Amino acid sequence: MEMKLPGQEGFEASSAPRNIPSGELDSNPGPGTGPSPDGPSDTESKELGVPKDPLLFIQLNELLGWPQALEWRQTGSSSASLLLDMGEMPPITLSTSTHLHHRWVLFEEKLEVAAGRWSAPHVPTLVLPSLQKLRSLLAEGLVLLDCPAQSLLELVEQVTRVESLSPELRGQLQALLLQRPQHYNQTTGTRPCWGSTHPRKASDNEEAPLREQDQNPLRQKLPPGAEAGTVLAGELGFLAQPLGAFVRLRDPVVLGSLTEVSLPSRFFCLLLGPPMLGKGYHEMGRAAAVLLSDPQFQWSVRRASNHHDLLAALDAFLEEVTVLPPGRWDPTARIPPPKCLPSQHKRLPSQQREIRGPSGPRLTSAEDRHHYGPHAPSPELQRSGRLFGGLIQDVRRKAPWYLSDFLDALHLQCFSAVLYIYLATVTNAITFGGLLGDATDGAQGVLESFLGTAVAGAAFCLMAGQPLTILSSTGPVLVFERLLFSFSRDYSLDYLPFRLWVGIWVATFCLVLVATEASVLVRYFTRFTEEGFCALISLIFIYDAVGKMLNLTHTYPIQKPGSSAYGCLCQYPGPGGNDSQWIRTRPKDRDDIVSMDLGLINASLLPPPECTRQGGQPRGPGCHTVPDIAFFSLLLFLTSFFFAMALKCIKTSRFFPSVVRKGLSDFSSVLAILLGCGLDAFLGLATPKLMVPREFKPTLPGRGWLVSPFGTNPWWWSVAAALPALLLSILIFMDQQITAVILNRVEYRLQKGAGFHLDLFCVAVLMLLTSVLGLPWYVSATVISLAHMDSLRRESRACAPGELPNFLGIREQRLTGLVVFILTGASIFLAPVLKFIPMPVLYGIFLYMGVAALSSIQFTKRVKLLLMPAKHQPDLLLLRHVPLTRVHLFTAIQLVCLGLLWIIKSTPAAIIFPLMLLGLVGVRKALERVFSPQELLWLDELMPEEERSIPEKGLEPEHSFSGSDSDDSELMYQPKAPEINISVN
Amino acid sequence: MEMKLPGQEGFEASSAPRNIPSGELDSNPGPGTGPSPDGPSDTESKELGVPKDPLLFIQLNELLGWPQALEWRQTGSSSASLLLDMGEMPPITLSTSTHLHHRWVLFEEKLEVAAGRWSAPHVPTLVLPSLQKLRSLLAEGLVLLDCPAQSLLELVEQVTRVESLSPELRGQLQALLLQRPQHYNQTTGTRPCWGSTHPRKASDNEEAPLREQDQNPLRQKLPPGAEAGTVLAGELGFLAQPLGAFVRLRDPVVLGSLTEVSLPSRFFCLLLGPPMLGKGYHEMGRAAAVLLSDPQFQWSVRRASNHHDLLAALDAFLEEVTVLPPGRWDPTARIPPPKCLPSQHKRLPSQQREIRGPSGPRLTSAEDRHHYGPHAPSPELQRSGRLFGGLIQDVRRKAPWYLSDFLDALHLQCFSAVLYIYLATVTNAITFGGLLGDATDGAQGVLESFLGTAVAGAAFCLMAGQPLTILSSTGPVLVFERLLFSFSRDYSLDYLPFRLWVGIWVATFCLVLVATEASVLVRYFTRFTEEGFCALISLIFIYDAVGKMLNLTHTYPIQKPGSSAYGCLCQYPGPGGNDSQWIRTRPKDRDDIVSMDLGLINASLLPPPECTRQGGQPRGPGCHTVPDIAFFSLLLFLTSFFFAMALKCIKTSRFFPSVVRKGLSDFSSVLAILLGCGLDAFLGLATPKLMVPREFKPTLPGRGWLVSPFGTNPWWWSVAAALPALLLSILIFMDQQITAVILNRVEYRLQKGAGFHLDLFCVAVLMLLTSVLGLPWYVSATVISLAHMDSLRRESRACAPGELPNFLGIREQRLTGLVVFILTGASIFLAPVLKFIPMPVLYGIFLYMGVAALSSIQFTKRVKLLLMPAKHQPDLLLLRHVPLTRVHLFTAIQLVCLGLLWIIKSTPAAIIFPLMLLGLVGVRKALERVFSPQELLWLDELMPEEERSIPEKGLEPEHSFSGSDSDDSELMYQPKAPEINISVN
Repeated sequence: MEMKLPGQEGFEASSAPRNIPSGELDSNPGPGTGPSPDGPSDTESKELGVPKDPLLFIQLNELLGWPQALEWRQTGSSSASLLLDMGEMPPITLSTSTHLHHRWVLFEEKLEVAAGRWSAPHVPTLVLPSLQKLRSLLAEGLVLLDCPAQSLLELVEQVTRVESLSPELRGQLQALLLQRPQHYNQTTGTRPCWGSTHPRKASDNEEAPLREQDQNPLRQKLPPGAEAGTVLAGELGFLAQPLGAFVRLRDPVVLGSLTEVSLPSRFFCLLLGPPMLGKGYHEMGRAAAVLLSDPQFQWSVRRASNHHDLLAALDAFLEEVTVLPPGRWDPTARIPPPKCLPSQHKRLPSQQREIRGPSGPRLTSAEDRHHYGPHAPSPELQRSGRLFGGLIQDVRRKAPWYLSDFLDALHLQCFSAVLYIYLATVTNAITFGGLLGDATDGAQGVLESFLGTAVAGAAFCLMAGQPLTILSSTGPVLVFERLLFSFSRDYSLDYLPFRLWVGIWVATFCLVLVATEASVLVRYFTRFTEEGFCALISLIFIYDAVGKMLNLTHTYPIQKPGSSAYGCLCQYPGPGGNDSQWIRTRPKDRDDIVSMDLGLINASLLPPPECTRQGGQPRGPGCHTVPDIAFFSLLLFLTSFFFAMALKCIKTSRFFPSVVRKGLSDFSSVLAILLGCGLDAFLGLATPKLMVPREFKPTLPGRGWLVSPFGTNPWWWSVAAALPALLLSILIFMDQQITAVILNRVEYRLQKGAGFHLDLFCVAVLMLLTSVLGLPWYVSATVISLAHMDSLRRESRACAPGELPNFLGIREQRLTGLVVFILTGASIFLAPVLKFIPMPVLYGIFLYMGVAALSSIQFTKRVKLLLMPAKHQPDLLLLRHVPLTRVHLFTAIQLVCLGLLWIIKSTPAAIIFPLMLLGLVGVRKALERVFSPQELLWLDELMPEEERSIPEKGLEPEHSFSGSDSDDSELMYQPKAPEINISVN
Repeated sequence: MEMKLPGQEGFEASSAPRNIPSGELDSNPGPGTGPSPDGPSDTESKELGVPKDPLLFIQLNELLGWPQALEWRQTGSSSASLLLDMGEMPPITLSTSTHLHHRWVLFEEKLEVAAGRWSAPHVPTLVLPSLQKLRSLLAEGLVLLDCPAQSLLELVEQVTRVESLSPELRGQLQALLLQRPQHYNQTTGTRPCWGSTHPRKASDNEEAPLREQDQNPLRQKLPPGAEAGTVLAGELGFLAQPLGAFVRLRDPVVLGSLTEVSLPSRFFCLLLGPPMLGKGYHEMGRAAAVLLSDPQFQWSVRRASNHHDLLAALDAFLEEVTVLPPGRWDPTARIPPPKCLPSQHKRLPSQQREIRGPSGPRLTSAEDRHHYGPHAPSPELQRSGRLFGGLIQDVRRKAPWYLSDFLDALHLQCFSAVLYIYLATVTNAITFGGLLGDATDGAQGVLESFLGTAVAGAAFCLMAGQPLTILSSTGPVLVFERLLFSFSRDYSLDYLPFRLWVGIWVATFCLVLVATEASVLVRYFTRFTEEGFCALISLIFIYDAVGKMLNLTHTYPIQKPGSSAYGCLCQYPGPGGNDSQWIRTRPKDRDDIVSMDLGLINASLLPPPECTRQGGQPRGPGCHTVPDIAFFSLLLFLTSFFFAMALKCIKTSRFFPSVVRKGLSDFSSVLAILLGCGLDAFLGLATPKLMVPREFKPTLPGRGWLVSPFGTNPWWWSVAAALPALLLSILIFMDQQITAVILNRVEYRLQKGAGFHLDLFCVAVLMLLTSVLGLPWYVSATVISLAHMDSLRRESRACAPGELPNFLGIREQRLTGLVVFILTGASIFLAPVLKFIPMPVLYGIFLYMGVAALSSIQFTKRVKLLLMPAKHQPDLLLLRHVPLTRVHLFTAIQLVCLGLLWIIKSTPAAIIFPLMLLGLVGVRKALERVFSPQELLWLDELMPEEERSIPEKGLEPEHSFSGSDSDDSELMYQPKAPEINISVN
């Protein structure tokens, strides 16, 4: 049944009910994946070969009234029923209000009768006395473990077989217990509605689940094999003394309509007694149900062999409860379910934890952080020491998976992933194509972008080590390409041939890097480097987008009231005003034409195009100005930017079903482009549009598909190209590997391993190919690849209300990427549609990309901290462990680095900026002299040497002294979402 | 010392330590005011004549190490100290990490040593065993109540006088306890820093507080009279058995540097013992500190007379603790302080609650809702039955306060209130002046708006019943004025004389309403009416703002590429092309001129103004178009709208100190107007600007200040004006009284009473005055009046970390308003500045006002619910008690009403819309047949008859069966902020 630890056999179900095999308990899947350690993730546990105890659904039924109208109601309140005046009981008036219905899977739900719905799931809270009363009732009461009852009737008979009951009372009680309870039926009507208002004999059809039980929406959510536990509590006037019973059925049995959903019951708890002050039995019932919903208590009680075990389990529960003081916390306040459930692992005694060690199959986030960070020597990043050793290892590692890389794609989810990633890729190709055309003055364009994306992407998907990667033009490469173009223009070079040589050299250098297994150096790229890289590129994006937008106001100047660029007329050659006369009096600058007396001319006021068609000539400065375009472009720019931002935010809003929200936010840029195009088409103004070729030939006129190796350049430039190629190689290495590290993080639970060397090899080969064909250069694009992986997430279904779905892994395969790029290639024929896209819309999308990338990094969060008074700062873990002034110092150093990089980028030495990025690694190294390793651990990550230099204990300072204040649990409650250190794509 | 309840004397400090006088406990000040029932609101309690127990500051010092370097550290961790290898103790390595320092006032703060700061205040959590261990230690230990010790030395001597200690051990222990503890000093340096690292003899200067104690920032926050409680806990190797002591000092004594802040100590708790497994003593110390910080325990223990009382108090605490199950809640997760502390009143046994009754001095929010809603018969709204009876009562009630209405204003806070409200009033006057000018085609304008605001506002502040009210043009009246203007234009009436008669009639009708005490009818205006009113007006605002903006695109058309409005030339009369020729060939419509051959003309391309100056004539359609203005206006409109919205949101952001945030959001519209003007001035385009008169005379040319009574209208129109006046009277009555009801809500704790009748009387008189002078009409403006009250809030200082300040009341006086309006009057001379304000900016501000008003009402929240899946809906109280379908039905009915109102407003019958607003009251009455009173109670408010029809119990359905699930505490946790049912101002 369960995985046993060595030396644990003997006392398992008796004296040490808390000794739980770790495999069962520690199913916390790591940071950022919304784990639930004991939730019904049965798919997962089966995969790992550890069968788990079935999920338990618990409900509390409360007995109401006495004796005629006596009936069970699922924790109905004591007011709605008929209470007869018996003996000392006061007469109770009728009321229509009923409430206090509860159910548990992971969290408590309370039936809000007036509102007719189950409350939001919340953390159950109890009052201490009810737990204590429950304990004493169970201590005196009946405990039946492995009760063989096969029906409710048998169960009731066994439970009521206690001495304290007279035969008459027993009969009465049995009849009562066999009554059909009234469940709230969610499916019917607008008002709260009870399954049946007439008590019915249980003998009717006791075992058959009722229709409404099966229709219960919760039933569909619970996994197969789930069991039920029922707590019946109530005050019975005819009982002389309290009656407590706890039953574990040997075989789970469907107890008729006792439970709200038709599940076989495993546990049955009866808490009855004479009326007493307060709501004693109701609260005791809740306490029993909360106990049963506790995974550890459940575990213990499933294995308990006697009365003593049960009480020991209860005591163990009491030992661990959290207590909130009454004056500072209202016991009735509902606590929403935590994002992360506490690790069951943590609840184990420390000796058992030691046994497990850090090599267990699943990791808590704290362990993740310290043992399996991206810089720990994972097998992919260990140096073999031989030439191309890493590459060979990569191929060896990936080859056995190759067939499954296609078979694993046979799932419906892959279809929607293809659609989503295809749209994102096409948007990317369009926007980067447009920007590349701008940057290279038309040497490349949208057509090249589509073609190159398709060819390179498909090839990479077929060959690469990590086929989930999506290749794309990326920001850094685009920036470098622009620098390269302006460089070659400055030296009057033929751009494409020069670029070809750069490409050849880059491929060569990259091959050298592959041969020397340089990829293992990525362990020196800490977050400091990644963030510096990302922040610089994001800022360049933002700067460029805004700059290009403002440039449009020069192309389409705004006309001020006093401006002279006003007049325009259409002059015809003819009598009186002939052409030569115009030419003769033509002034040198535009200003003069305005004030000049035109003399006698033959003219009309036709607009320029019409004028030309009619044989006239448009004259005057006003003929060349297109009014309104500048402001309209600005409006389009802002609209597409803000619309994309707003759509992205919709994901976390409360509106619309989650499918709609996800769709809107995933396609935010597509929708923003569509909105921009729509607005533009609606007004029909002559805004600048995306330039697309009308036919399938290179954008640059007069070149074939193959770039000539020298063109008009002197031959020695092909050698000199090695210098910029060296810089580009550094850039490509960094861009490619930072992305690869992010994609292959342990949080994603990839099964088929990474291939850092193989990926770089593929990039190098494709570099060569695209250079020869004059296509854009491609490396891995972080954001779009992460989106790809995200769309292929495998998750357990969330069964329990309030539970978050469990992350199981990624559908690792090559097919989705391949199909995406084939479709992208086919989209070359989209040109007739693409030419309607206004450029300001694309600029807006680029601004959005820059802002989104910038806001996703921790650096930005720390910059924001600079503006916040300490009092209002969020309770970040970082701030709990590093003094604020040190945090600010670190941020300030990063800001200074960024400023220096920006200055370098703005000087003629701009082309060396990849070298400067590499310099960030050096700066980070130097920071070791300023900050302690502990501080760096929180502010950044550790470099390999630092990791070695710090003793294990030192890394987790709280661990050795951890009592209830240990900080790894704090980590649990602030799960690290897979941080996207975006190299803008 | 405290207010005693009847029959409570005998058992106060002995057997029933939980019987707490209600006056002391129930200091929850009502909804929306951030109450803290037991917080240090000493100002408040003094005012109410109930002295409270002093505030207690508690800190936990932990004893570290043994024996030489033995020292107290304020809960320092066991790692930073020198632990010597003694006997059975294992050798412990040195470490620099120290943590686990705690302090409490209301909430727990933990010293984050590495980060060098106190954590955010949080709700303390304990583990149950530590409380139980503490109980047993105290049960066996020493309890000294009213200990007469006058110094730490005496105290230590008394505490160590136990049999279990040998004289030698006692000496050792005394020496240890007298050592100076090391406190974390927040004021020094960037790294955590301890007051002193060398143990110092207590005899040095035991009693004198140290400099760093006084400099402690917490010291400044704590109120005078605050006391300290110190818990010392730790493991001492030389002790054979645990040593527990609890001391209540007879007179609080400054115990040297024992506490972090130099406060006299009242309580002293010692928890020492031999080392044991786990952090037993540390957790016990925390438990003791949390106990001491509990207001009920504190209360009991201050009055405890023996050992038994102490344990009884502890048991009572245990009875009430909230328990969270370990599997669902991590005990180390920090729970942020709740917005509202639980009512201490709720913790009283129910019998005591009964004694207090609903007439107690302070109310819980639940009581507020049910007993003191705006519709409860408050004295101001009781009918006297005599003519002008209400008015006379109002004057009688307010007259005694008249002098204090000026004296109470002598406070610095009033100065900033004047500045803020002045700016808001001027903004309002400008925007409404601009809109009025638009609406009445210049019959009124900005000058009238300023003058009228100043005169009417100042007069109202001097005379009115509620002088905190700010009179202003309001949306409803503006809407009506526009309808009236178009009506009089349709009938070719002379507007101002007609309006004068309307005003005369309105004043008459209002006087009749005052005479008949009609103001008591406001109790029939439920939220349904208020929201319908507000939503309609807001929508009209939004519609108008957008409509006016779009109208600008007609005035300044956008030029499409193919459009013909292109050409413009400057034609001179002269040979060849003479003027007559032009005229002869002039086509009928603009289009023709373009294609027409102009023939031979003598022309230039000068811009139109220049052309005219030079004697020419601008010719062609292009001469009259002003390009770029339309889009630039749209940009200005959007910029000012979004900027104002963003500034408003800054208030709740984390950035900037709260003063800056409050300033930015309070002045959001002023800043947005400034930004818009700046942008406009920067580009210098000819956008339409606000029209302001250049001299002090009415905007309408050719009229004096007094409106002639008939003008060109037939005499019988002065009688017919009674009909629209009737409608306007209804509107003014509703607008004025809804605002008055909101301003006089009990939440604001006004001391000087309201004056509904007097207010209406003043409005009627001012109506007459403004009509005679042709100034705008004024009624109370909700938002700006609320802002006025808000700027005059009196609050207790928040003393405890995590505590919200306590609302004490409003500075009720007449001076701030008076000064504001005098300043407004003086601002008439701002005209030279005001003419730079572009109209699109004002439209943007009006859009902002409409959106802000619309989003503040519950109706909008319910409309949003329509778009949310049930799962994602917020956990509103409303939804817990009313089925979702019923909520949606109610919302749908409101939407239909709104739709009907909108349709009526759009037909020629628009002028009767005030009657339709009154019809809302009828619709609300009819809803009683559709919804149950309970549902209406949650969805709306009850009308007077309904209130009577429902038994008291029925109003609070949960109360009669309330156990731990009672819902009044739920109310506490969702404090009703003073809801702003804005009649847009």
